[in-house]
Amino acid sequence: MIFENNDHIVFAGDSVTDAGSAGEASVPMFDNLGHGYVRHIDSLLAACYPERCIRVTNAGISGHTTRELLARFDRDVMSQKPDWVSICIGINDVWRQFDVPAIHEYQVMPEEYEKNLEEMIEKAKNGTKGVFVLSPYYIEPNPADRMRARMDEYVEICRRLAEKHGCVFIDLQKLFADYCGYRHSSYLAWDRIHPNQVGAALVAREFLSRCGFDYNH
Amino acid sequence: MIFENNDHIVFAGDSVTDAGSAGEASVPMFDNLGHGYVRHIDSLLAACYPERCIRVTNAGISGHTTRELLARFDRDVMSQKPDWVSICIGINDVWRQFDVPAIHEYQVMPEEYEKNLEEMIEKAKNGTKGVFVLSPYYIEPNPADRMRARMDEYVEICRRLAEKHGCVFIDLQKLFADYCGYRHSSYLAWDRIHPNQVGAALVAREFLSRCGFDYNH
Amino acid sequence: MIFENNDHIVFAGDSVTDAGSAGEASVPMFDNLGHGYVRHIDSLLAACYPERCIRVTNAGISGHTTRELLARFDRDVMSQKPDWVSICIGINDVWRQFDVPAIHEYQVMPEEYEKNLEEMIEKAKNGTKGVFVLSPYYIEPNPADRMRARMDEYVEICRRLAEKHGCVFIDLQKLFADYCGYRHSSYLAWDRIHPNQVGAALVAREFLSRCGFDYNH
Amino acid sequence: MIFENNDHIVFAGDSVTDAGSAGEASVPMFDNLGHGYVRHIDSLLAACYPERCIRVTNAGISGHTTRELLARFDRDVMSQKPDWVSICIGINDVWRQFDVPAIHEYQVMPEEYEKNLEEMIEKAKNGTKGVFVLSPYYIEPNPADRMRARMDEYVEICRRLAEKHGCVFIDLQKLFADYCGYRHSSYLAWDRIHPNQVGAALVAREFLSRCGFDYNH
Amino acid sequence: MIFENNDHIVFAGDSVTDAGSAGEASVPMFDNLGHGYVRHIDSLLAACYPERCIRVTNAGISGHTTRELLARFDRDVMSQKPDWVSICIGINDVWRQFDVPAIHEYQVMPEEYEKNLEEMIEKAKNGTKGVFVLSPYYIEPNPADRMRARMDEYVEICRRLAEKHGCVFIDLQKLFADYCGYRHSSYLAWDRIHPNQVGAALVAREFLSRCGFDYNH
Amino acid sequence: MIFENNDHIVFAGDSVTDAGSAGEASVPMFDNLGHGYVRHIDSLLAACYPERCIRVTNAGISGHTTRELLARFDRDVMSQKPDWVSICIGINDVWRQFDVPAIHEYQVMPEEYEKNLEEMIEKAKNGTKGVFVLSPYYIEPNPADRMRARMDEYVEICRRLAEKHGCVFIDLQKLFADYCGYRHSSYLAWDRIHPNQVGAALVAREFLSRCGFDYNH
Amino acid sequence: MIFENNDHIVFAGDSVTDAGSAGEASVPMFDNLGHGYVRHIDSLLAACYPERCIRVTNAGISGHTTRELLARFDRDVMSQKPDWVSICIGINDVWRQFDVPAIHEYQVMPEEYEKNLEEMIEKAKNGTKGVFVLSPYYIEPNPADRMRARMDEYVEICRRLAEKHGCVFIDLQKLFADYCGYRHSSYLAWDRIHPNQVGAALVAREFLSRCGFDYNH
Amino acid sequence: MIFENNDHIVFAGDSVTDAGSAGEASVPMFDNLGHGYVRHIDSLLAACYPERCIRVTNAGISGHTTRELLARFDRDVMSQKPDWVSICIGINDVWRQFDVPAIHEYQVMPEEYEKNLEEMIEKAKNGTKGVFVLSPYYIEPNPADRMRARMDEYVEICRRLAEKHGCVFIDLQKLFADYCGYRHSSYLAWDRIHPNQVGAALVAREFLSRCGFDYNH
Repeated sequence: MIFENNDHIVFAGDSVTDAGSAGEASVPMFDNLGHGYVRHIDSLLAACYPERCIRVTNAGISGHTTRELLARFDRDVMSQKPDWVSICIGINDVWRQFDVPAIHEYQVMPEEYEKNLEEMIEKAKNGTKGVFVLSPYYIEPNPADRMRARMDEYVEICRRLAEKHGCVFIDLQKLFADYCGYRHSSYLAWDRIHPNQVGAALVAREFLSRCGFDYNH
Repeated sequence: MIFENNDHIVFAGDSVTDAGSAGEASVPMFDNLGHGYVRHIDSLLAACYPERCIRVTNAGISGHTTRELLARFDRDVMSQKPDWVSICIGINDVWRQFDVPAIHEYQVMPEEYEKNLEEMIEKAKNGTKGVFVLSPYYIEPNPADRMRARMDEYVEICRRLAEKHGCVFIDLQKLFADYCGYRHSSYLAWDRIHPNQVGAALVAREFLSRCGFDYNH
Repeated sequence: MIFENNDHIVFAGDSVTDAGSAGEASVPMFDNLGHGYVRHIDSLLAACYPERCIRVTNAGISGHTTRELLARFDRDVMSQKPDWVSICIGINDVWRQFDVPAIHEYQVMPEEYEKNLEEMIEKAKNGTKGVFVLSPYYIEPNPADRMRARMDEYVEICRRLAEKHGCVFIDLQKLFADYCGYRHSSYLAWDRIHPNQVGAALVAREFLSRCGFDYNH
Repeated sequence: MIFENNDHIVFAGDSVTDAGSAGEASVPMFDNLGHGYVRHIDSLLAACYPERCIRVTNAGISGHTTRELLARFDRDVMSQKPDWVSICIGINDVWRQFDVPAIHEYQVMPEEYEKNLEEMIEKAKNGTKGVFVLSPYYIEPNPADRMRARMDEYVEICRRLAEKHGCVFIDLQKLFADYCGYRHSSYLAWDRIHPNQVGAALVAREFLSRCGFDYNH
Repeated sequence: MIFENNDHIVFAGDSVTDAGSAGEASVPMFDNLGHGYVRHIDSLLAACYPERCIRVTNAGISGHTTRELLARFDRDVMSQKPDWVSICIGINDVWRQFDVPAIHEYQVMPEEYEKNLEEMIEKAKNGTKGVFVLSPYYIEPNPADRMRARMDEYVEICRRLAEKHGCVFIDLQKLFADYCGYRHSSYLAWDRIHPNQVGAALVAREFLSRCGFDYNH
Repeated sequence: MIFENNDHIVFAGDSVTDAGSAGEASVPMFDNLGHGYVRHIDSLLAACYPERCIRVTNAGISGHTTRELLARFDRDVMSQKPDWVSICIGINDVWRQFDVPAIHEYQVMPEEYEKNLEEMIEKAKNGTKGVFVLSPYYIEPNPADRMRARMDEYVEICRRLAEKHGCVFIDLQKLFADYCGYRHSSYLAWDRIHPNQVGAALVAREFLSRCGFDYNH
Repeated sequence: MIFENNDHIVFAGDSVTDAGSAGEASVPMFDNLGHGYVRHIDSLLAACYPERCIRVTNAGISGHTTRELLARFDRDVMSQKPDWVSICIGINDVWRQFDVPAIHEYQVMPEEYEKNLEEMIEKAKNGTKGVFVLSPYYIEPNPADRMRARMDEYVEICRRLAEKHGCVFIDLQKLFADYCGYRHSSYLAWDRIHPNQVGAALVAREFLSRCGFDYNH
Repeated sequence: MIFENNDHIVFAGDSVTDAGSAGEASVPMFDNLGHGYVRHIDSLLAACYPERCIRVTNAGISGHTTRELLARFDRDVMSQKPDWVSICIGINDVWRQFDVPAIHEYQVMPEEYEKNLEEMIEKAKNGTKGVFVLSPYYIEPNPADRMRARMDEYVEICRRLAEKHGCVFIDLQKLFADYCGYRHSSYLAWDRIHPNQVGAALVAREFLSRCGFDYNH
């Protein structure tokens, strides 16, 4: 597995990452990791690799777009001295274009999204062992849905930047779309955004599958 | 307008009808009408037709399927001595097939749905001036979506029974699908089920349009 | 209808405008528009004119007189870059003269009221497409009631200033007095000030009737 | 003063009597007398006549009409073995005709009001030293107001029954109307029904003035 | 009566004065006068003298000694521009000597008490029509009780300063001791300090008796 | 020490015994022993005699007089199969005669007190190793105080019955009166009834001094 | 994997199983599965085997011993018509012997434990595809600890009964003891009983390893 | 006894000292001493030595290590002008090495622990009559437990520094280990750290035994 003893992984993101963690950059003490995919990853790493002392920090905040995350990236992410950084951001950049279409200042357009994300990736690469880029997504299997189609543009920006900067790219849009082949989206998330525990387990499994993780280790 | 002085309209249904009303059969006193389409209809009738004293009662309860609504139909609806009855039920009958697919006893299949609904319509016709049947819906414009497709089966049952029994049929599925031509579903309801105030205004307008209501009366 | 695509309307006022909106200048996201006439107007515009993307902001704060509203008018109203401004203020200026007659610093006399209101109208006209002036009111049909009589003086100031500055004047005092021909004031508001949902629907209908709004659009 | 040592006075009524007392028939222990006129009467009797041990019980319940009060009169009033009974009821009998005009079962018409009240007076006279009948009221000085005019009919029923049965009649309608010669009704009660502490002091003074009470005793 | 139209009386003190009022210097709006003797005085003045518009402000704060009251006297009392000032302070100065005898910095000794009180009286006399000095007290009829005896020293300081400065002196210690001739102290206050509503009515009556107040005015 | 291995002591009483314990007959698990003298006794027995497994149960309920305690004595005390029973009751029997003098049914007169207490002692003696009778008290050092004097009558009844039935009599009245030689009563209890932690420690020490308890065991 | 399409697994137990689930027999809807090992198992089954519709029910209740679980076994477990039953019980049977040693009726001795558990196993085998017996445990690696030693007796009873009745036996005591070779017990559970999310992941992995589960399925 | 009249003892520490006290440096008024060993010591001193007026202050804060306590030592401890200082710190310095092994900045290693503690002892000796050093502990009787073994290193540092500086050393580790000879650790503290009331009584007795305290004084 790619994570070595004492490695520190910081997960940056929005409410999907946050998932009820207590504060901005939360530690795995007293339930501060939230109850989303970050918690699942921490639990599985600790359960399956007890001989390694891997540290996980949750740096997600609900409602954030790339604009807010960028503004706090140094304080909440890089100041934690991470060995690995995971970035999962963009859902709110797109969502606000559809649920409050009249409020333009809440929305982040593709050019700004790309600029913000690239700035964060560059910061994250600096002095770390690796960067994960988790795509935004909409748990909507129909590619003709307008918000899904818009989200796909942002997913492509993610993919492009991840490749350009040598990051691990994780396509959560595809992950969820594939799962919708078996179950309806309402099984995972009533609002098609915030996954329940099954969805969190799915994201964690996808993430860990890219890290050489062995469940039966 | 079809409603005459002192007419009493009782709205039966699930959480879409309930929308936070205090109890089972709620009266328009002390905010007991909830904040959904029932409240909108009451407000518009009272604002535009002050010379008529029309009474509105909310008999919706969150989470109910046709099974639960039928069980309480005499107590909560018919005992209110309505002049008009509106029935909007079936969303949960379908939803449970998709969000908790393993729990079969929570789901209501089409045959039972038809039987339950017809029994309620027959009760509702007895001694009243008219019955409204509001279709269940899923605010999903894609007809290929599995839950939308399943919902369409129930909408058709509604339409068929309404015609058979001479009820006013209101196709909320079509109403919302049409609106999605302008705005994304997330603008009306994050979970594609519970409409916000805009959605409630839409349902109220559709309902009133079938009653000879004149906004500028 | 006079509102065009992407127009932004800001409603300034006191608790009648505020009606439970979360903060000072609230947006139509996450129920921040309150539950009064502003919400009704937003819902009806969005329901009936989905092809236009009209933005509504609630800038009411409970308890405010013209003195407090003027002090925050730049921050809460004009900084929102409105295309249209609606001002409904003065109830508390008068009410405090009757419910706490001994506390003079809580009351706003006619001259100051006129000065404050005119200053706000002048700010509001600057760079916008139009200004609405909604009169204060007391849901009291008896013109001999002392508080009603006093309120009438303020209504006249409103009317005069609206005409002088070419604003749309909406006489809420008359609207409610007319309605009291059909129902007792306690039907609309126990305290004869804060309208329930029926009263909010009345105000919204009156407002929209001056905007070329068509309910059956 | 007419109250002798160890006399027990029970006050029956609605929310005006209740005024936040803890339960149905409340005792002057642990703040169970509410904070309305009953509390004022108890405090003044105890402060000015410490040598007499007069017991006061609050038997008011919010929202009650004569119909509900009659139903519990034996349990809550007569079972307390009162020496004196005070009855103040009827506001809700009338109010419901105006604030929820469509809900007929919430309203009590004059004939039923008279019958209910007389039945209570007859019970109250049985074995006691005296009965007080406090009229219902609406703090509205305009006799042409429809709810005020309707209330006046009920006040007259009160007066007539009090005289017929030799009760002390206290005309609260006149008391408040007179006070409105000095201050606007909103000074006493925003809803013109529930008096604030000033109104409670007024009612207590009127009551005590009929009992030979001397403030400087 | 000594209070003229528009007179403003400010009551300074500790928890006995405060009695649950909302803030530091509270006005008679929205229940901000607390529920102690200040409220009783306001209610009786307004009920009995409606033709005069007398303003009452509660400037009591729970737990304060003369030290804290002096520190805020300009801000909370004199800045209110009172016509009359009432000062009732000293209970906590003494009480802390008995309930937390080891914490010397919580206690105020007689010399400091005298100095603090005199400084407040001098401020209060400046530009006002009169000053009331209400003595501290302990509802303990036994003069040999150590805390009662200590309190008596402070009462005498009060009396001496009131006479020296021409203030109205009101001896609450004597008032309560006399009342204990009729009822046990636990009838008025379980802790022998905070009077219930009967005790508040007693203090109000004593205060008003020194002002030419006529209950039957 | 008189308590042997596995002995079970049940403490019956009112709020002084109860002191916040969760239910009627509480066990020393999960903080169910309250925070009064019962908890102190349990903690000291367990800390000083760990080799004995002594069980303590709190059977106090706030507000109870002998009348209520007798009614539940079998259910709450004897059904616990105690080896030792401690009874501390009577404070409320007396207190109600002074704080609510007009409510006679809340008070328990000496004859009934004696009858109730004796009945409980007889039950308690049946099959147990011993019975403790803790006197009621009023933390008032002045024997001329009327409530103290009345309490002394009840203390004497306690003493007499304890002697008659061979119970251990513990004179809490004397204990607190002696302590008041050093500190004022307000140091122990603001209401002279409910002791703080110091008072609880005092009662516990007095109780244990009668049991052969050695703190340095 | 041994679980087939539509299989229903019911998990019976105490607080370790319960882990905050809403009611007695909880379903995987609206977060009713708690947040312990049952939730982990459900999430992993659903994430990794979406093609199978496996139903999981949580029938744990905090604080229960075998005595309470047996009393509700028919109602909460068997009436759910399970295909598989998992039983994890006994921790409280032992714990009460150590944290409340004096309260014998809270404790369950080995003979009764064995009898209760066997009765449940026999019920569980009836008509199901299989029964899992999860041992009780104490996350204490020192076998000389008295509570650990006592727990080991119960673990052996479990093992013996599981073998006798052909159940799958899962030795949680050994699982946790092994993990303590890597991390201190306080890392998993401050009280050595209630596992955190890492501990829940450990139990889930152990359970699934006995079911032919493949994480990379 | 070593404490003289008016002596002031300040107890510095972490959650074991704090035990729910209201603020940082709490006084024995209004339950501010918490409910741990500090409260027990205060209660016993006041109950047994009423003739001396000894003051106790709780300066514990939950979660603190020596690092945080040192940072606030001047403000919270020395500024209180203590005659005696008690320091009980170090549990969290060690615990964090085991419950969050990956978060190194939360842990305090032996060298820093020694430096911090010595700095506090030197401050505490300055101008006081004496300093108590209470060792950290883990209520774990097995010396081979890794956290217990680590704690023992810190206990030894305590002992060494106490001797070097002439402080009273109190070995809480030995106290609890001895008690575990009679009862299991779960009887005193489920997490083996925070003692219940029995544990608090044990600590208080040990502390007082070093002060010449006589329970039967």
